[in-house]
Amino acid sequence: MVVLCKPATYVPEHVITMEDTLAIARRLHPDHPDLKLALRLIANTGVRTRHLVRPIEETLRHPGFEARNRTFTTEARRRIPAVVERALGHAGLRADQIDLIVFVSCTGFSMPSPTAWMINTMGFGPTTRQLPIAQLGCAAGGAALNRAHDFCTAHPGTNALVVACEFCSLCYQPTDLNVGQLLSNGLFGDALAAAVLRGDDAATGMRLERNGSYLIPHTEDWICYAVRATGFHFQLDKRVPKTMKDLAPALQDLARQHHQDPAGLDFYIVHAGGPRILDDLSRFLDVPPLAFRHSRATLTEHGNIASAVVLDALRRQFDEGGVPAGGAGMVAGFGPGITAEMTMGTWLPTPSARRRSTRTT
Amino acid sequence: MVVLCKPATYVPEHVITMEDTLAIARRLHPDHPDLKLALRLIANTGVRTRHLVRPIEETLRHPGFEARNRTFTTEARRRIPAVVERALGHAGLRADQIDLIVFVSCTGFSMPSPTAWMINTMGFGPTTRQLPIAQLGCAAGGAALNRAHDFCTAHPGTNALVVACEFCSLCYQPTDLNVGQLLSNGLFGDALAAAVLRGDDAATGMRLERNGSYLIPHTEDWICYAVRATGFHFQLDKRVPKTMKDLAPALQDLARQHHQDPAGLDFYIVHAGGPRILDDLSRFLDVPPLAFRHSRATLTEHGNIASAVVLDALRRQFDEGGVPAGGAGMVAGFGPGITAEMTMGTWLPTPSARRRSTRTT
Repeated sequence: MVVLCKPATYVPEHVITMEDTLAIARRLHPDHPDLKLALRLIANTGVRTRHLVRPIEETLRHPGFEARNRTFTTEARRRIPAVVERALGHAGLRADQIDLIVFVSCTGFSMPSPTAWMINTMGFGPTTRQLPIAQLGCAAGGAALNRAHDFCTAHPGTNALVVACEFCSLCYQPTDLNVGQLLSNGLFGDALAAAVLRGDDAATGMRLERNGSYLIPHTEDWICYAVRATGFHFQLDKRVPKTMKDLAPALQDLARQHHQDPAGLDFYIVHAGGPRILDDLSRFLDVPPLAFRHSRATLTEHGNIASAVVLDALRRQFDEGGVPAGGAGMVAGFGPGITAEMTMGTWLPTPSARRRSTRTT
Repeated sequence: MVVLCKPATYVPEHVITMEDTLAIARRLHPDHPDLKLALRLIANTGVRTRHLVRPIEETLRHPGFEARNRTFTTEARRRIPAVVERALGHAGLRADQIDLIVFVSCTGFSMPSPTAWMINTMGFGPTTRQLPIAQLGCAAGGAALNRAHDFCTAHPGTNALVVACEFCSLCYQPTDLNVGQLLSNGLFGDALAAAVLRGDDAATGMRLERNGSYLIPHTEDWICYAVRATGFHFQLDKRVPKTMKDLAPALQDLARQHHQDPAGLDFYIVHAGGPRILDDLSRFLDVPPLAFRHSRATLTEHGNIASAVVLDALRRQFDEGGVPAGGAGMVAGFGPGITAEMTMGTWLPTPSARRRSTRTT
């Protein structure tokens, strides 16, 4: 069996509030014809605070793609070790017990990926497999769990580490001025998250049981990057917030394949791309809004932290005390494609409770 | 069981010979202090022809990172369908029977990756999983096979498609003038390759049985990209050609774990980064040079085509008539990290021969 252990998450030290964001938008774009609309859209996100790897005034200056990528690497190296150590601690494992590192990030690019540096400096063995994914955007958190799940299933007894490193502020593009881009500037935040998948029965957490993917046909240019000399320019089609109508059936299909009632799951951890996504998903899945409280808390406190959302929301589920043993649930990341990467599983009792239960039966 | 079927490969129509390459180097760099050394290194590669997606005079002009990436996408879309159709044909499958697409390329970047376009235009189903890998360089061909192998093992009965799309000429950087860069300009070529992994016993080819990875400690900056406003700048340390001394033991370890004599395998499909790599591997593995004839033929006819090398060399093994049934062998890609991605397997008889053999026993 493959168990997803408690994730560790980390947000950087430079905090920007909703009020700061609105004030900056007013200061930078006083004559923008759609300023009022942009301010309203930003206010509607409900994002109270976001965290940045660099101070806001520095973030607002674009030093060029090369310097941006260098900053990404520097900040990633400064911040990865602590969050990874905590994730390993939650799983009760050391770095040299990890067989695969899945590293996902769409906000900085390097070759080799940071996995090589991690192996060289953090105690992972030289035979650790590396799976870097840069092109799945916000869906990459779900994809990372799914591919790690596949790996641990194919290689029984192995363990995998998933790391999502998203410094969205390093993709801020001061010359991008359409309303979707102004909204994005007020929505995305920086964060790191990591989690271990254990391939044995010594861990508590979510037993992963089935995964799947779904691409909404002919939406490939609705969420995409324009790749330019100035770096990655995020392009968001205004139809994106309405896509839950198309993705909810994919979530329902997977639940039914797993012989579960999609409206009656015991936990739901979904990507919090924005408030509309959570509202619509509640409606289309016929699930109370409270079901998405962890995703909403991530959005409110950190903004949209891309592939790290699902790991941070799952961490909140653990912090809440987990789920009663045997509870069934789903993790789903949404991102470019437009793609949903989904996984179904069951909450496990703690190993000590399992031992007691084995003794008494 | 998971069977790697015959790959399809494709090289574009614009051909450049060794003589052309040497003449261009002389014309562009008449006063370069190391011109003679660079010419000798290029001549030593033994690369007779390379194939480019655009004419050479256009390739030599740098139109900017944005235009380069657009060209990558345009040329990829023009050229992917035919090679993928041939790979599907070799496996006897239709696009809608594929459950995972692994798309690897380090020479163009997009989000979403071309997998979304493939699903939308080529008949793959919307539940096809997408695994794009951009950061494993020349090792990505081996990594793609290994992660596809894991997927088909974890999901019995599924099939995976691997696509390697490398247009190295679109990473030509006219301002990069050190000897390693001049050598690279004469070494890399453009190509596409695709192969299907079937998760049943209806196919002939290489049954995949064990995979592994090895990173040579503290070599992460020996093969890397400098990411700049002008795109990806390939950086090659002069120690790289000598790394087979460190990678050969990793290949030997994996063979021995699989109860095989690493010097006595029936076939070897390895990355042809350059001639020294093949010569050294022959020496360190104690294997005759002829064992690497397919990799050498790829290098000679197409240049170093990055992640596509191992698929093209394996295609040559099939074209030669395959391997006697039961023959054991290895596929190994080498790339940044410095990483080897290796897989072991056994050559299968054709399904009709298997049926005959089943009947008589």
